[in-house]
Amino acid sequence: MYAPGDVRFEERDDPTIDEPTDAIIRMSATCVCGSDLWPYRGAQDFDAPAPFGHEYVGIVEEVGSEVSTVRPGQFVVGSFIASDNTCPNCRAGYQSACVDRRSMAAEGAQAEMLRVPLADGTLVATPEVPDDAMLPSLLAASDVLGTGWFAAVAAEAGPGRTVAVVGDGAVGLLGVLAARELGAERVVAFSRHESRQKLALEFGATDIVEERGEEGVGRIKDLTDGVGADSVLECVGTDESFKQAIASTRPGGTVGYVGVPHGVSLGAPELFGPQVGLRGGGAPVRRFLPELLELVWNGQIDPGKVFDLTLPLSEVAEGYRAMDERRAIKTLLQP
Amino acid sequence: MYAPGDVRFEERDDPTIDEPTDAIIRMSATCVCGSDLWPYRGAQDFDAPAPFGHEYVGIVEEVGSEVSTVRPGQFVVGSFIASDNTCPNCRAGYQSACVDRRSMAAEGAQAEMLRVPLADGTLVATPEVPDDAMLPSLLAASDVLGTGWFAAVAAEAGPGRTVAVVGDGAVGLLGVLAARELGAERVVAFSRHESRQKLALEFGATDIVEERGEEGVGRIKDLTDGVGADSVLECVGTDESFKQAIASTRPGGTVGYVGVPHGVSLGAPELFGPQVGLRGGGAPVRRFLPELLELVWNGQIDPGKVFDLTLPLSEVAEGYRAMDERRAIKTLLQP
Repeated sequence: MYAPGDVRFEERDDPTIDEPTDAIIRMSATCVCGSDLWPYRGAQDFDAPAPFGHEYVGIVEEVGSEVSTVRPGQFVVGSFIASDNTCPNCRAGYQSACVDRRSMAAEGAQAEMLRVPLADGTLVATPEVPDDAMLPSLLAASDVLGTGWFAAVAAEAGPGRTVAVVGDGAVGLLGVLAARELGAERVVAFSRHESRQKLALEFGATDIVEERGEEGVGRIKDLTDGVGADSVLECVGTDESFKQAIASTRPGGTVGYVGVPHGVSLGAPELFGPQVGLRGGGAPVRRFLPELLELVWNGQIDPGKVFDLTLPLSEVAEGYRAMDERRAIKTLLQP
Repeated sequence: MYAPGDVRFEERDDPTIDEPTDAIIRMSATCVCGSDLWPYRGAQDFDAPAPFGHEYVGIVEEVGSEVSTVRPGQFVVGSFIASDNTCPNCRAGYQSACVDRRSMAAEGAQAEMLRVPLADGTLVATPEVPDDAMLPSLLAASDVLGTGWFAAVAAEAGPGRTVAVVGDGAVGLLGVLAARELGAERVVAFSRHESRQKLALEFGATDIVEERGEEGVGRIKDLTDGVGADSVLECVGTDESFKQAIASTRPGGTVGYVGVPHGVSLGAPELFGPQVGLRGGGAPVRRFLPELLELVWNGQIDPGKVFDLTLPLSEVAEGYRAMDERRAIKTLLQP
């Protein structure tokens, strides 16, 4: 990305093993993330030009001398944060806060080849090399599925709970799926886009609310005896969406938030009166990867449906444009 | 209170039964709350002149025709929010968000007699009329003990957890007591006042940290393998104290906050990177009252130690002054 709106497909040198804990993988698929749209839209600074992308699945090509849990030829999935999986934060299930964490975005996963630091802690191998048909769902686990799953876990979605989901992007839609898989009784999706509503319903939403802001909150209250939802997933990151999420939650309920906050400011009106718990941030996707890969491998979930546009990597610029203009929910790129 | 700094003891008409669910109680003791200091210091508007006070214990004098669970002659304790204890929010343990809640501050508990709305849902009677020696600890249950307890519960203090407490007022000190009662292994109190440090240690603090801000956070990290405390109680309500609390918490840990926020603004730096859960607001003290009264009645806890100044109600103005100047932690007033 050279500037907001200016994404180019260019030749770069292949990555090499820089540290003995590195692995190099040959990418089977990568994609564009909703969070990539913040810099693309000029809403987040970056040092241009920069490689982009942090979602990846592929075949291990080479490993450093200290890598012991993955080997060349294996198909692997990792999260957007590389983590050692042994530090106190990793052991507590917050690999996203690993004391030695590395950003995969800095490596640039929208590429043919990718260096993965801390390969032992970061990568999870599948039982075999999967069919191409399974690639989208495995790729989803690298970020959007794991992030939506964390939102649902953070919001304490579970049996008997009424859940609302703010945001109908890939993460929000997979938050719907996660809430249902975790046993939520009722899942309300906020969405005003027909194709996204349809996917939300396929993923298990029981109700759709088209209204936003106060009107949207009113609809949630109507559906919940006037008190609000038990769990609300915030999957956008704007001040408006955070406030809508908090106002939609009952006292004692919890907002699980994963939208990267842009312009969010919470003060006394949000923090004190509503008595709503908040938990979120960068999702510790690595915590959930083994479980999510198993659900995908067994065919129990099909999160890959969020990819409604597939392009060759060389057309990455169109992949961004389609998402920016909301013509696509999420673009899969084939290296 | 006629204006910031101007508190007067005056004769008012005795309250009367206005609704059939009311009770009138003859106050055995009342007190000044840290939260009363915000308007006293000009940091919070109010319609002057206004009665003040929201903490109360006393003998039921009269009840309305629909009151059935308390009767004249009983000694009772209630929370600073009157609640019906039957609505969906009350049943979920958030009586502070009762759909029919009433503010006891509006009634003015710094008085000889007090009207308590929704008496059946609000008041809890003790087995007998207590000795005077027990009054301070029972009065503490009306707000500061219940509020500190909620902070500890909200922060998920419990067995094996390391807890830090920001704020060495009565609520913070009782947060220390609550964390220990709930089984916390280690409780670190932030305090730079000798008398408050002493009380924190009596209530079970295992460590004292005198530093604040970044230095204070550094001390917590030093005590916790570099990652931060599992649970942090925020018992102040300033922007600085909220940020100190969040920065002192490990990823995946939880801040329980009960300080009324003044000038607090949380954005991306606090919400996203730290991956710290937040839960708090006005404490649902009524949820904990039966349990807390039993602990006091059995002599297991002695929260009344936070009262280090006792004055006749007529000297209420001096009670405010002493707390404002931090000469007293908390002032008990004898009607």
